[in-house]
Amino acid sequence: MLREPVSSIVDPDAGGMSGRTGRYEKRLSDLVGLYENAEAYEALLGSEGDLLVYDVEDFRPGEHTGDINYGVTRMSPGRVGREFYLTRGHIHAKADRPEIYFGQRGYGLMHLESPAGETRIVEIKPQTICYVPPFWIHRSVNVGDEDLVMVFAYPSDSGQDYGIIEASNGMRHRIVADNSGGWELVDNTAYKPRTDQQVAALMKQYA
Amino acid sequence: MLREPVSSIVDPDAGGMSGRTGRYEKRLSDLVGLYENAEAYEALLGSEGDLLVYDVEDFRPGEHTGDINYGVTRMSPGRVGREFYLTRGHIHAKADRPEIYFGQRGYGLMHLESPAGETRIVEIKPQTICYVPPFWIHRSVNVGDEDLVMVFAYPSDSGQDYGIIEASNGMRHRIVADNSGGWELVDNTAYKPRTDQQVAALMKQYA
Repeated sequence: MLREPVSSIVDPDAGGMSGRTGRYEKRLSDLVGLYENAEAYEALLGSEGDLLVYDVEDFRPGEHTGDINYGVTRMSPGRVGREFYLTRGHIHAKADRPEIYFGQRGYGLMHLESPAGETRIVEIKPQTICYVPPFWIHRSVNVGDEDLVMVFAYPSDSGQDYGIIEASNGMRHRIVADNSGGWELVDNTAYKPRTDQQVAALMKQYA
Repeated sequence: MLREPVSSIVDPDAGGMSGRTGRYEKRLSDLVGLYENAEAYEALLGSEGDLLVYDVEDFRPGEHTGDINYGVTRMSPGRVGREFYLTRGHIHAKADRPEIYFGQRGYGLMHLESPAGETRIVEIKPQTICYVPPFWIHRSVNVGDEDLVMVFAYPSDSGQDYGIIEASNGMRHRIVADNSGGWELVDNTAYKPRTDQQVAALMKQYA
Protein backbone atom coordinates (compact mmCIF):
# COMPACT_ATOMS: atom_id res chain seq x y z
CA MET A 1 0.00 0.00 0.00
CA LEU A 2 1.32 3.40 -0.97
CA ARG A 3 1.28 5.98 1.81
CA GLU A 4 1.73 9.74 1.55
CA PRO A 5 5.00 11.43 2.60
CA VAL A 6 4.96 13.10 6.01
CA SER A 7 6.56 16.34 7.07
CA SER A 8 7.20 17.15 10.73
CA ILE A 9 8.52 20.42 12.11
CA VAL A 10 10.55 19.84 15.26
CA ASP A 11 10.37 22.48 17.97
CA PRO A 12 13.73 22.33 19.78
CA ASP A 13 12.61 24.84 22.42
CA ALA A 14 9.20 23.55 23.46
CA GLY A 15 9.85 19.94 22.41
CA GLY A 16 7.31 18.15 20.24
CA MET A 17 6.66 18.20 16.54
CA SER A 18 3.91 18.55 13.97
CA GLY A 19 2.82 15.61 11.82
CA ARG A 20 2.63 13.29 14.82
CA THR A 21 0.33 10.32 15.28
CA GLY A 22 0.64 10.22 19.08
CA ARG A 23 1.74 11.88 22.27
CA TYR A 24 2.22 10.73 25.84
CA GLU A 25 3.29 12.32 29.09
CA LYS A 26 4.97 10.97 32.19
CA ARG A 27 4.32 12.72 35.48
CA LEU A 28 6.10 12.28 38.76
CA SER A 29 3.43 9.86 39.99
CA ASP A 30 4.04 7.63 36.93
CA LEU A 31 7.67 7.26 38.02
CA VAL A 32 7.04 5.90 41.51
CA GLY A 33 9.69 3.41 42.59
CA LEU A 34 12.28 4.52 40.06
CA TYR A 35 14.25 6.75 42.38
CA GLU A 36 16.74 5.85 45.07
CA ASN A 37 15.30 8.17 47.68
CA ALA A 38 11.64 7.36 48.35
CA GLU A 39 11.44 10.01 51.03
CA ALA A 40 12.70 12.75 48.69
CA TYR A 41 10.26 11.48 46.05
CA GLU A 42 7.28 11.78 48.41
CA ALA A 43 8.44 15.18 49.61
CA LEU A 44 8.71 16.46 46.04
CA LEU A 45 5.29 15.10 45.15
CA GLY A 46 3.88 16.77 48.24
CA SER A 47 5.49 20.15 47.71
CA GLU A 48 5.34 20.45 43.92
CA GLY A 49 2.39 18.26 43.01
CA ASP A 50 2.27 15.79 40.18
CA LEU A 51 4.86 17.48 37.96
CA LEU A 52 5.18 16.75 34.27
CA VAL A 53 8.62 15.12 33.98
CA TYR A 54 8.76 14.21 30.29
CA ASP A 55 6.63 14.01 27.17
CA VAL A 56 7.01 12.26 23.86
CA GLU A 57 5.46 13.08 20.49
CA ASP A 58 5.93 10.57 17.74
CA PHE A 59 5.01 9.42 14.28
CA ARG A 60 4.32 5.70 13.95
CA PRO A 61 3.57 4.47 10.44
CA GLY A 62 2.53 1.05 11.75
CA GLU A 63 4.37 -1.99 13.06
CA HIS A 64 5.59 -3.37 9.75
CA THR A 65 9.09 -4.89 9.89
CA GLY A 66 11.48 -2.62 8.03
CA ASP A 67 9.58 0.58 8.77
CA ILE A 68 10.76 3.36 11.12
CA ASN A 69 9.08 5.32 13.93
CA TYR A 70 10.41 8.73 14.87
CA GLY A 71 9.61 11.47 17.32
CA VAL A 72 10.72 14.06 19.82
CA THR A 73 11.22 13.59 23.55
CA ARG A 74 11.42 16.46 26.04
CA MET A 75 12.42 16.08 29.68
CA SER A 76 12.38 18.76 32.36
CA PRO A 77 15.48 19.47 34.43
CA GLY A 78 15.30 18.42 38.05
CA ARG A 79 16.29 15.91 40.69
CA VAL A 80 14.73 13.63 43.24
CA GLY A 81 17.14 14.05 46.11
CA ARG A 82 20.57 13.84 44.47
CA GLU A 83 19.33 11.76 41.50
CA PHE A 84 18.62 13.41 38.17
CA TYR A 85 15.29 13.08 36.36
CA LEU A 86 15.25 10.07 34.08
CA THR A 87 12.97 8.15 31.74
CA ARG A 88 11.60 4.74 32.69
CA GLY A 89 13.98 3.12 30.23
CA HIS A 90 13.54 -0.02 28.18
CA ILE A 91 15.07 -2.74 26.10
CA HIS A 92 13.35 -3.46 22.82
CA ALA A 93 10.93 -6.39 22.90
CA LYS A 94 12.82 -7.48 19.79
CA ALA A 95 16.07 -6.88 21.62
CA ASP A 96 18.19 -6.81 18.45
CA ARG A 97 16.59 -3.52 17.36
CA PRO A 98 18.70 -0.35 17.76
CA GLU A 99 17.66 3.26 18.35
CA ILE A 100 19.16 6.59 17.45
CA TYR A 101 18.84 9.79 19.46
CA PHE A 102 19.79 13.23 18.24
CA GLY A 103 20.26 16.07 20.74
CA GLN A 104 18.38 19.28 19.99
CA ARG A 105 18.57 21.20 23.26
CA GLY A 106 20.04 20.86 26.75
CA TYR A 107 22.50 18.39 28.21
CA GLY A 108 21.65 14.79 28.85
CA LEU A 109 23.06 11.33 29.13
CA MET A 110 22.10 8.11 27.46
CA HIS A 111 22.50 5.53 30.20
CA LEU A 112 23.00 2.09 28.69
CA GLU A 113 23.24 -1.31 30.34
CA SER A 114 23.99 -4.60 28.64
CA PRO A 115 22.01 -7.70 29.58
CA ALA A 116 25.09 -8.88 31.55
CA GLY A 117 25.17 -5.61 33.49
CA GLU A 118 27.87 -3.51 31.83
CA THR A 119 27.25 0.25 31.97
CA ARG A 120 27.96 2.77 29.22
CA ILE A 121 27.27 6.50 29.28
CA VAL A 122 26.98 8.70 26.17
CA GLU A 123 26.79 12.45 26.67
CA ILE A 124 24.19 14.13 24.47
CA LYS A 125 24.23 17.82 23.61
CA PRO A 126 22.80 19.63 20.58
CA GLN A 127 24.24 18.03 17.40
CA THR A 128 25.13 14.74 19.14
CA ILE A 129 23.69 11.59 17.60
CA CYS A 130 23.79 8.60 19.94
CA TYR A 131 23.45 5.18 18.32
CA VAL A 132 22.11 2.66 20.83
CA PRO A 133 23.17 -0.71 19.38
CA PRO A 134 20.97 -3.79 19.53
CA PHE A 135 20.64 -5.51 22.92
CA TRP A 136 21.26 -2.51 25.19
CA ILE A 137 18.80 -1.40 27.87
CA HIS A 138 18.68 2.39 27.68
CA ARG A 139 17.21 5.34 29.49
CA SER A 140 17.87 9.06 29.19
CA VAL A 141 18.80 11.35 32.04
CA ASN A 142 18.65 15.14 32.14
CA VAL A 143 21.84 16.30 33.87
CA GLY A 144 21.56 19.89 32.67
CA ASP A 145 19.65 22.87 33.94
CA GLU A 146 17.24 23.26 31.04
CA ASP A 147 14.89 20.98 29.08
CA LEU A 148 16.55 18.06 27.35
CA VAL A 149 15.09 17.71 23.84
CA MET A 150 16.04 14.88 21.50
CA VAL A 151 14.79 13.51 18.19
CA PHE A 152 14.71 9.72 18.07
CA ALA A 153 14.13 6.98 15.50
CA TYR A 154 13.82 3.21 15.84
CA PRO A 155 12.47 0.28 13.84
CA SER A 156 8.67 0.11 13.86
CA ASP A 157 8.61 -3.51 14.97
CA SER A 158 10.95 -3.00 17.96
CA GLY A 159 8.43 -2.94 20.77
CA GLN A 160 9.42 -1.84 24.28
CA ASP A 161 10.01 -3.99 27.33
CA TYR A 162 9.76 -1.63 30.28
CA GLY A 163 9.67 -4.44 32.83
CA ILE A 164 13.31 -5.46 32.46
CA ILE A 165 14.60 -2.61 34.64
CA GLU A 166 11.99 -3.16 37.35
CA ALA A 167 12.81 -6.88 37.43
CA SER A 168 16.41 -6.03 38.41
CA ASN A 169 15.37 -3.36 40.92
CA GLY A 170 16.69 -0.68 38.60
CA MET A 171 19.86 -0.35 36.57
CA ARG A 172 23.24 -1.23 38.07
CA HIS A 173 24.17 2.43 38.41
CA ARG A 174 22.37 5.61 39.31
CA ILE A 175 23.28 9.04 38.02
CA VAL A 176 23.49 11.61 40.75
CA ALA A 177 24.77 15.13 41.33
CA ASP A 178 28.39 15.31 42.41
CA ASN A 179 29.79 18.07 44.62
CA SER A 180 30.96 20.32 41.79
CA GLY A 181 27.79 20.89 39.78
CA GLY A 182 28.33 17.81 37.59
CA TRP A 183 27.17 14.22 37.68
CA GLU A 184 28.63 10.92 38.75
CA LEU A 185 27.74 7.24 38.72
CA VAL A 186 26.99 5.50 41.98
CA ASP A 187 26.12 1.88 42.59
CA ASN A 188 22.47 0.94 42.88
CA THR A 189 22.73 -1.19 46.02
CA ALA A 190 19.37 -2.87 45.31
CA TYR A 191 20.47 -4.09 41.85
CA LYS A 192 19.81 -7.75 41.11
CA PRO A 193 21.90 -9.03 38.15
CA ARG A 194 20.26 -11.12 35.45
CA THR A 195 21.16 -14.80 35.35
CA ASP A 196 23.23 -16.30 32.53
CA GLN A 197 20.08 -17.91 31.19
CA GLN A 198 18.25 -14.57 31.17
CA VAL A 199 21.18 -12.92 29.40
CA ALA A 200 21.31 -15.67 26.77
CA ALA A 201 17.56 -15.42 26.16
CA LEU A 202 17.85 -11.65 25.56
CA MET A 203 20.64 -12.01 22.98
CA LYS A 204 18.30 -13.57 20.42
CA GLN A 205 18.26 -12.39 16.78
CA TYR A 206 14.76 -11.61 15.51
CA ALA A 207 15.59 -10.70 11.92
CA MET B 1 26.98 -9.99 19.33
CA LEU B 2 27.10 -6.98 21.61
CA ARG B 3 28.45 -3.84 19.97
CA GLU B 4 29.57 -0.61 21.62
CA PRO B 5 27.41 2.54 21.54
CA VAL B 6 28.41 5.17 18.96
CA SER B 7 28.41 8.91 19.33
CA SER B 8 28.48 11.19 16.29
CA ILE B 9 28.76 14.96 16.32
CA VAL B 10 26.94 16.48 13.34
CA ASP B 11 28.43 19.61 11.79
CA PRO B 12 25.49 21.55 10.34
CA ASP B 13 27.77 24.13 8.72
CA ALA B 14 30.41 22.02 7.01
CA GLY B 15 28.23 18.91 6.71
CA GLY B 16 29.59 15.57 7.84
CA MET B 17 29.90 13.97 11.24
CA SER B 18 32.31 12.17 13.52
CA GLY B 19 31.90 8.48 14.33
CA ARG B 20 31.36 7.59 10.69
CA THR B 21 32.23 4.32 8.98
CA GLY B 22 32.23 5.75 5.46
CA ARG B 23 32.20 8.77 3.21
CA TYR B 24 31.57 9.33 -0.49
CA GLU B 25 31.53 12.28 -2.82
CA LYS B 26 29.72 13.00 -6.06
CA ARG B 27 31.31 15.38 -8.49
CA LEU B 28 29.79 16.96 -11.56
CA SER B 29 31.29 14.28 -13.80
CA ASP B 30 29.55 11.57 -11.75
CA LEU B 31 26.21 13.17 -12.59
CA VAL B 32 26.49 13.05 -16.37
CA GLY B 33 23.16 12.46 -18.08
CA LEU B 34 21.06 13.55 -15.10
CA TYR B 35 20.39 17.09 -16.25
CA GLU B 36 17.98 18.36 -18.88
CA ASN B 37 20.46 20.64 -20.56
CA ALA B 38 23.51 18.69 -21.77
CA GLU B 39 25.03 21.80 -23.31
CA ALA B 40 24.82 23.75 -20.03
CA TYR B 41 26.30 20.70 -18.26
CA GLU B 42 29.31 20.57 -20.60
CA ALA B 43 29.77 24.32 -20.36
CA LEU B 44 29.75 24.18 -16.55
CA LEU B 45 32.21 21.30 -16.51
CA GLY B 46 34.44 23.25 -18.90
CA SER B 47 34.35 26.54 -17.03
CA GLU B 48 34.31 25.33 -13.41
CA GLY B 49 35.99 21.94 -13.63
CA ASP B 50 34.84 18.80 -11.91
CA LEU B 51 33.02 20.47 -9.01
CA LEU B 52 32.11 18.65 -5.84
CA VAL B 53 28.29 18.62 -5.88
CA TYR B 54 27.49 16.58 -2.78
CA ASP B 55 29.06 14.38 -0.15
CA VAL B 56 27.70 11.87 2.31
CA GLU B 57 29.17 10.66 5.59
CA ASP B 58 27.46 7.75 7.26
CA PHE B 59 27.53 5.16 9.96
CA ARG B 60 26.59 1.65 8.86
CA PRO B 61 26.45 -0.97 11.59
CA GLY B 62 26.10 -3.77 9.02
CA GLU B 63 23.28 -5.04 6.84
CA HIS B 64 21.33 -6.89 9.50
CA THR B 65 17.54 -6.66 9.11
CA GLY B 66 16.14 -4.47 11.88
CA ASP B 67 19.26 -2.32 12.21
CA ILE B 68 19.54 1.35 11.16
CA ASN B 69 22.11 3.31 9.12
CA TYR B 70 22.41 7.05 9.63
CA GLY B 71 24.48 9.90 8.29
CA VAL B 72 24.76 13.43 7.02
CA THR B 73 24.42 14.61 3.44
CA ARG B 74 25.65 18.00 2.21
CA MET B 75 24.88 19.43 -1.23
CA SER B 76 26.27 22.64 -2.73
CA PRO B 77 23.93 25.28 -4.13
CA GLY B 78 23.95 25.64 -7.88
CA ARG B 79 22.23 24.95 -11.17
CA VAL B 80 22.89 23.32 -14.51
CA GLY B 81 21.13 25.74 -16.80
CA ARG B 82 17.81 26.38 -15.06
CA GLU B 83 17.82 23.05 -13.18
CA PHE B 84 18.86 22.91 -9.55
CA TYR B 85 21.58 20.60 -8.27
CA LEU B 86 20.17 17.23 -7.28
CA THR B 87 21.26 13.83 -6.00
CA ARG B 88 21.15 10.78 -8.24
CA GLY B 89 18.11 9.53 -6.37
CA HIS B 90 17.03 5.97 -5.65
CA ILE B 91 14.35 3.58 -4.58
CA HIS B 92 15.34 1.06 -1.96
CA ALA B 93 16.32 -2.34 -3.32
CA LYS B 94 13.91 -3.62 -0.69
CA ALA B 95 11.35 -1.10 -1.89
CA ASP B 96 9.20 -1.31 1.26
CA ARG B 97 11.93 0.36 3.34
CA PRO B 98 11.37 4.03 4.31
CA GLU B 99 13.86 6.80 4.99
CA ILE B 100 13.82 9.86 7.19
CA TYR B 101 15.61 13.12 6.46
CA PHE B 102 16.07 15.94 8.94
CA GLY B 103 17.04 19.42 7.69
CA GLN B 104 20.01 21.04 9.41
CA ARG B 105 20.92 23.91 7.11
CA GLY B 106 19.74 25.50 3.87
CA TYR B 107 16.59 25.01 1.83
CA GLY B 108 15.91 21.90 -0.17
CA LEU B 109 13.21 19.71 -1.58
CA MET B 110 12.61 16.02 -1.28
CA HIS B 111 11.39 15.05 -4.74
CA LEU B 112 9.38 11.85 -4.56
CA GLU B 113 7.89 9.72 -7.31
CA SER B 114 5.70 6.67 -6.88
CA PRO B 115 6.28 3.61 -9.06
CA ALA B 116 3.18 4.63 -11.04
CA GLY B 117 4.62 8.09 -11.64
CA GLU B 118 2.92 10.35 -9.11
CA THR B 119 5.05 13.28 -7.91
CA ARG B 120 5.22 14.67 -4.38
CA ILE B 121 7.40 17.50 -3.11
CA VAL B 122 8.33 18.07 0.53
CA GLU B 123 10.10 21.30 1.43
CA ILE B 124 12.98 20.82 3.87
CA LYS B 125 14.41 23.57 6.02
CA PRO B 126 16.20 23.37 9.37
CA GLN B 127 13.97 21.49 11.84
CA THR B 128 11.94 19.75 9.11
CA ILE B 129 11.80 15.97 9.26
CA CYS B 130 10.66 14.38 6.01
CA TYR B 131 9.41 10.80 6.22
CA VAL B 132 9.78 9.06 2.86
CA PRO B 133 7.30 6.16 3.04
CA PRO B 134 8.02 2.74 1.59
CA PHE B 135 7.89 2.41 -2.22
CA TRP B 136 8.76 6.01 -3.15
CA ILE B 137 11.67 6.90 -5.42
CA HIS B 138 13.33 9.93 -3.87
CA ARG B 139 16.05 12.42 -4.58
CA SER B 140 16.97 15.69 -2.89
CA VAL B 141 17.34 19.03 -4.62
CA ASN B 142 19.06 22.15 -3.33
CA VAL B 143 16.79 25.08 -4.24
CA GLY B 144 18.45 27.51 -1.84
CA ASP B 145 21.54 29.65 -2.10
CA GLU B 146 23.64 27.91 0.53
CA ASP B 147 24.64 24.32 1.33
CA LEU B 148 21.76 21.94 2.00
CA VAL B 149 22.66 19.76 4.99
CA MET B 150 20.42 16.95 6.21
CA VAL B 151 20.72 14.07 8.67
CA PHE B 152 19.20 10.84 7.38
CA ALA B 153 18.36 7.37 8.71
CA TYR B 154 17.11 4.23 6.98
CA PRO B 155 16.94 0.49 7.65
CA SER B 156 20.32 -1.22 7.24
CA ASP B 157 18.96 -3.86 4.88
CA SER B 158 17.30 -1.35 2.49
CA GLY B 159 19.85 -1.30 -0.29
CA GLN B 160 19.70 1.31 -3.06
CA ASP B 161 18.51 0.88 -6.61
CA TYR B 162 19.96 3.84 -8.51
CA GLY B 163 19.08 2.39 -11.91
CA ILE B 164 15.33 2.91 -11.63
CA ILE B 165 15.53 6.61 -12.49
CA GLU B 166 17.89 6.07 -15.42
CA ALA B 167 15.60 3.35 -16.80
CA SER B 168 12.77 5.91 -17.10
CA ASN B 169 15.04 8.62 -18.52
CA GLY B 170 14.76 10.54 -15.29
CA MET B 171 11.88 11.40 -13.01
CA ARG B 172 8.56 12.61 -14.43
CA HIS B 173 9.27 16.17 -13.33
CA ARG B 174 12.31 18.40 -13.16
CA ILE B 175 12.81 21.16 -10.61
CA VAL B 176 13.92 24.39 -12.19
CA ALA B 177 14.28 28.06 -11.33
CA ASP B 178 11.16 30.12 -11.97
CA ASN B 179 11.23 33.79 -12.89
CA SER B 180 10.88 35.14 -9.36
CA GLY B 181 13.81 33.53 -7.54
CA GLY B 182 11.88 30.42 -6.59
CA TRP B 183 11.44 26.96 -8.07
CA GLU B 184 8.82 25.22 -10.15
CA LEU B 185 8.08 21.78 -11.54
CA VAL B 186 8.29 21.21 -15.27
CA ASP B 187 7.62 18.06 -17.25
CA ASN B 188 10.55 15.87 -18.17
CA THR B 189 9.68 15.34 -21.83
CA ALA B 190 11.97 12.31 -22.07
CA TYR B 191 10.20 10.48 -19.22
CA LYS B 192 9.21 6.89 -19.93
CA PRO B 193 6.56 5.60 -17.48
CA ARG B 194 6.94 2.19 -15.89
CA THR B 195 4.58 -0.53 -17.05
CA ASP B 196 1.84 -1.96 -14.82
CA GLN B 197 3.93 -5.10 -14.44
CA GLN B 198 6.96 -3.09 -13.35
CA VAL B 199 4.84 -1.16 -10.86
CA ALA B 200 3.37 -4.35 -9.42
CA ALA B 201 6.82 -5.91 -9.08
CA LEU B 202 8.08 -2.89 -7.13
CA MET B 203 5.19 -2.96 -4.64
CA LYS B 204 6.45 -6.17 -3.05
CA GLN B 205 6.67 -6.55 0.74
CA TYR B 206 10.05 -7.82 1.90
CA ALA B 207 9.42 -8.04 5.63
